[in-house]
Amino acid sequence: MYKDRIRLSSLLDKVMSADEAASLIKDGMTVGMSGFTRAGEAKAVPLALVERAKTNPLKITLVTGASLGNDIDKKLTEVGALARRLPFQVDTTLRKAINDGKVMFIDQHLSETVEQMRAHQIPRPDIAVIEAVSITEEGHIVPTTSVGNSASFVQFAKQVIVEINTTLSTDFEGLHDIYLPEERPNRTPVKVLKAEDRIGSAAIAVDPSKIVGIVFSELRDSPSNALPADEETQAIADHLIAFLKQEVDAGRMPNSLRPLQVGIGTIANAVTSGLVKSPFTDLVQYSEVLQDSTFELLEAGKLKFASASSITVSAACGERVFGNINAYKDKLVLRPQEISNLPEIVRRLGTISINTALEFDIYGNVNSTHVNGSKMMNGIGGSGDFARNAQLAVFVTKSTAKGGAISSVVPMVSHVDHTGHDADVLVTEIGLADLRGLAPRERARAIIDNCVHPDYRAALNDYFERACAKGGQTPHILSEALSWHVSLEENGAMLVK
Amino acid sequence: MYKDRIRLSSLLDKVMSADEAASLIKDGMTVGMSGFTRAGEAKAVPLALVERAKTNPLKITLVTGASLGNDIDKKLTEVGALARRLPFQVDTTLRKAINDGKVMFIDQHLSETVEQMRAHQIPRPDIAVIEAVSITEEGHIVPTTSVGNSASFVQFAKQVIVEINTTLSTDFEGLHDIYLPEERPNRTPVKVLKAEDRIGSAAIAVDPSKIVGIVFSELRDSPSNALPADEETQAIADHLIAFLKQEVDAGRMPNSLRPLQVGIGTIANAVTSGLVKSPFTDLVQYSEVLQDSTFELLEAGKLKFASASSITVSAACGERVFGNINAYKDKLVLRPQEISNLPEIVRRLGTISINTALEFDIYGNVNSTHVNGSKMMNGIGGSGDFARNAQLAVFVTKSTAKGGAISSVVPMVSHVDHTGHDADVLVTEIGLADLRGLAPRERARAIIDNCVHPDYRAALNDYFERACAKGGQTPHILSEALSWHVSLEENGAMLVK
Ligand SMILES: CC(C)(COP(=O)(O)OP(=O)(O)OC[C@H]1O[C@@H](n2cnc3c(N)ncnc32)[C@H](O)[C@@H]1OP(=O)(O)O)[C@@H](O)C(=O)NCCC(=O)NCCS
Ligand SMILES: CC(C)(COP(=O)(O)OP(=O)(O)OC[C@H]1O[C@@H](n2cnc3c(N)ncnc32)[C@H](O)[C@@H]1OP(=O)(O)O)[C@@H](O)C(=O)NCCC(=O)NCCS
Repeated sequence: MYKDRIRLSSLLDKVMSADEAASLIKDGMTVGMSGFTRAGEAKAVPLALVERAKTNPLKITLVTGASLGNDIDKKLTEVGALARRLPFQVDTTLRKAINDGKVMFIDQHLSETVEQMRAHQIPRPDIAVIEAVSITEEGHIVPTTSVGNSASFVQFAKQVIVEINTTLSTDFEGLHDIYLPEERPNRTPVKVLKAEDRIGSAAIAVDPSKIVGIVFSELRDSPSNALPADEETQAIADHLIAFLKQEVDAGRMPNSLRPLQVGIGTIANAVTSGLVKSPFTDLVQYSEVLQDSTFELLEAGKLKFASASSITVSAACGERVFGNINAYKDKLVLRPQEISNLPEIVRRLGTISINTALEFDIYGNVNSTHVNGSKMMNGIGGSGDFARNAQLAVFVTKSTAKGGAISSVVPMVSHVDHTGHDADVLVTEIGLADLRGLAPRERARAIIDNCVHPDYRAALNDYFERACAKGGQTPHILSEALSWHVSLEENGAMLVK
Repeated sequence: MYKDRIRLSSLLDKVMSADEAASLIKDGMTVGMSGFTRAGEAKAVPLALVERAKTNPLKITLVTGASLGNDIDKKLTEVGALARRLPFQVDTTLRKAINDGKVMFIDQHLSETVEQMRAHQIPRPDIAVIEAVSITEEGHIVPTTSVGNSASFVQFAKQVIVEINTTLSTDFEGLHDIYLPEERPNRTPVKVLKAEDRIGSAAIAVDPSKIVGIVFSELRDSPSNALPADEETQAIADHLIAFLKQEVDAGRMPNSLRPLQVGIGTIANAVTSGLVKSPFTDLVQYSEVLQDSTFELLEAGKLKFASASSITVSAACGERVFGNINAYKDKLVLRPQEISNLPEIVRRLGTISINTALEFDIYGNVNSTHVNGSKMMNGIGGSGDFARNAQLAVFVTKSTAKGGAISSVVPMVSHVDHTGHDADVLVTEIGLADLRGLAPRERARAIIDNCVHPDYRAALNDYFERACAKGGQTPHILSEALSWHVSLEENGAMLVK
């Protein structure tokens, strides 16, 4: 079996236990690990590191593609092993440690982490830990269900640990397209002109002498935790699909739309699923992450091709797809997140980008990360890479949260991740606001009339009208602008009747 | 003389007076005019339009490259001719009308206006009015001191008016590089790999039958209003140049730095001038606008090449440069603003981008546009195109405004143009904060310790410490976050002693 998975025989003597590999990670190191949206993370080595940290404490800077599964962030936090963490996370325990100021979290646009490493603006990893299905004759690394930042971590790190996951077939080889931009000033265009273009190699190039350990694991990705669509997420999907039909009818895009980027989560999944019954054909995805709905669309013959940096699916979907990956290889490609999210390509293709907001304000500024301006939820992820450069940047959210105590449409957002410039269309279950070409006062009218929950509409109208009386391009009453959030903190609800 | 300026003889009979040309502009039209940072705007036709509107009122949507000179925005506002205005302006009278809600102003990233027109997301111009030095044998238009959005306006408009400025030499031909991206889905890479690369043609292509009028004018660009450096702007320049030296010494960039983008204005001009005495050599600019300081650097042999969309200089500098443009043509290129500001190219080149903030907050969010969150100053301009994609995004501002009544460093900005993700380095005359790789709490320490005026430091420290005690990734006390601005409105000063 080893020879099938490690085709460069000189590397066979690098096989070791996860404990041995974990012992190569030293206190104070910057560790670059595979893993993007809970797909394809190294598993055995970090879990061994957790065990070791229990008796032999250490603190590391952990850099990944995006979020990890298998409770790795939780367990590393519990043993106090994380000094710094970037660029994204979704774990409740880590989130608390971040918000308590115990872990320094550097929330980043996901295309930018390795760009900053390349320019020596943030530390390069001392060691990389990369999940793979196999190692090629040249010693190159074939990733699993995500590419993330793995290729750059391997390039930058002095030492590389490969974790071979034997639950996934070696047939994954050929699914990935590994391409890294050159160092400046010799950077050339990244020649992805269509979502399906392949411009790189099937495996991550590495000088085999950097591979200091190879570990075998049988741990699987955590399954997707997207919920089935409910009435509200379905309404959001319906509004958006009706709008896209109008766009096609008006001749602003073809019936195959533009390449779709859809964020992770329940609403996003519902929107993509909704396309199965839509009149659109020959769709393509140019996205970060593929969810179950991508495979529904593929199987329904609606989707021609999907490009992303990871595949995060339910157990059932995983069995279907990963168990028969050869059947999908001409319809899928996984790329480094720097390429899946590259402003150059997103703008060239002109994606339709659909991401989820926590809240937005009457002028269309979007908060996707900070509850009440202070507490980190997950991170901005790739939403900014896409929203800034998309042809159509859509943000979706339910109009209220926490049983109605919170309006997701507020006078002023408590934190800005995306400015109004980067939000073309906003959608809640109430309706859709098309903000293109509108001045701020006109945006406010469109948002209040279309997106706000009826329980909050009068109060927002009142705020807006009084603000307009004071004047300005973007009228605000600063002494009240954040009062809904203050009320939430003090009274548990934004509006007290 | 006509034949020298209009080389396609079939167009000679299109010569008309400015009044006649202005009468082609009808009520309700969208008008696309040349002009970028008060350079190269059409002059005679809009001034004739002002006269006409006095007796024969009309309202138009005016789209330009960026700001206009010769008080055109002021005069059009005074006669009530502007219904809508995009994407940028700098005029006091228009600013007041915008803030009074009388003119709908759509503030945009300067690379995006024509991209949105191309996708039919905002109206295309009915008519284009373009300043030129001449018309070629093919009927193509050779622009003057800016390119801005002119090439796209000519492409999109049904009718084109050319305003030939005879104060500028026909030798301007060859200075410009006109290239427009293809429509999606057939967009290809924009192959500018170095600031000096030329990828297009010397004139704006047009079907000559669209040219409905040609007007001669002898009106000049308004001279630059950048002030000489004062003690504070000089200190800002000195801090930044010292930092760039450290970057070179640390091996993070070569002694020729990276291509420089420098915003317009006094501070920006002082920084560029400061480079004359710096140890850096073989500099290049990849910028929006070139000011006097570019020519100081060229003449000092420090600068090899400068690419931009416009040239905005003092009268003396203009005489030197425009009067002898052939001597500069191998060192300068003017491009459409979509290309000078294109995320693809800015990220590829990895510019050092230096733009001016009105205020920034302790977490590094930047407000460049809205005084006290409501009142528009100018617009975001190209600062966002650059800051998001630069290798090093720098924002500069004096630490206080209005004689010290305003701190430019605040607990929370009252409007966000650039999120903390897009601000690597912040500089005031007090000092420089290097935010790269820092978590928000660390950013706050760096900013408070280095950039804040001493009069405000204790109060900011107090806010930050009490916010940290409440917790969060980005600790805030929402009931106080905007209180400095509220105090400014109520008491005329941010802090009342
Ligand atoms: C914004 C984001 C947190 C929404 O998550 P989601 O799971 O899709 O949506 P939900 O409506 O279930 O909201 C998640 C939680 O936020 C809460 N929430 C939603 N809106 C809120 C608001 N305005 N204020 C406070 N809490 C809010 C919900 O109540 C829910 O809380 P719970 O976990 O305690 O039940 C998530 O999409 C995200 O992290 N986005 C940023 C990253 C991104 O866009 N990446 C790009 C593509 S991967
Ligand atoms: C931010 C910007 C307005 C600064 O302008 P500037 O002329 O360089 O700088 P100044 O310090 O002279 O400030 C301009 C005015 O703003 C005022 N100001 C500065 N900071 C302020 C603050 N925090 N609150 C209120 N007013 C402030 C100044 O007092 C001055 O007022 P005045 O005109 O009445 O004297 C200007 O650079 C801009 O519009 N930037 C956005 C566009 C951009 O970056 N383009 C990219 C490149 S062209």
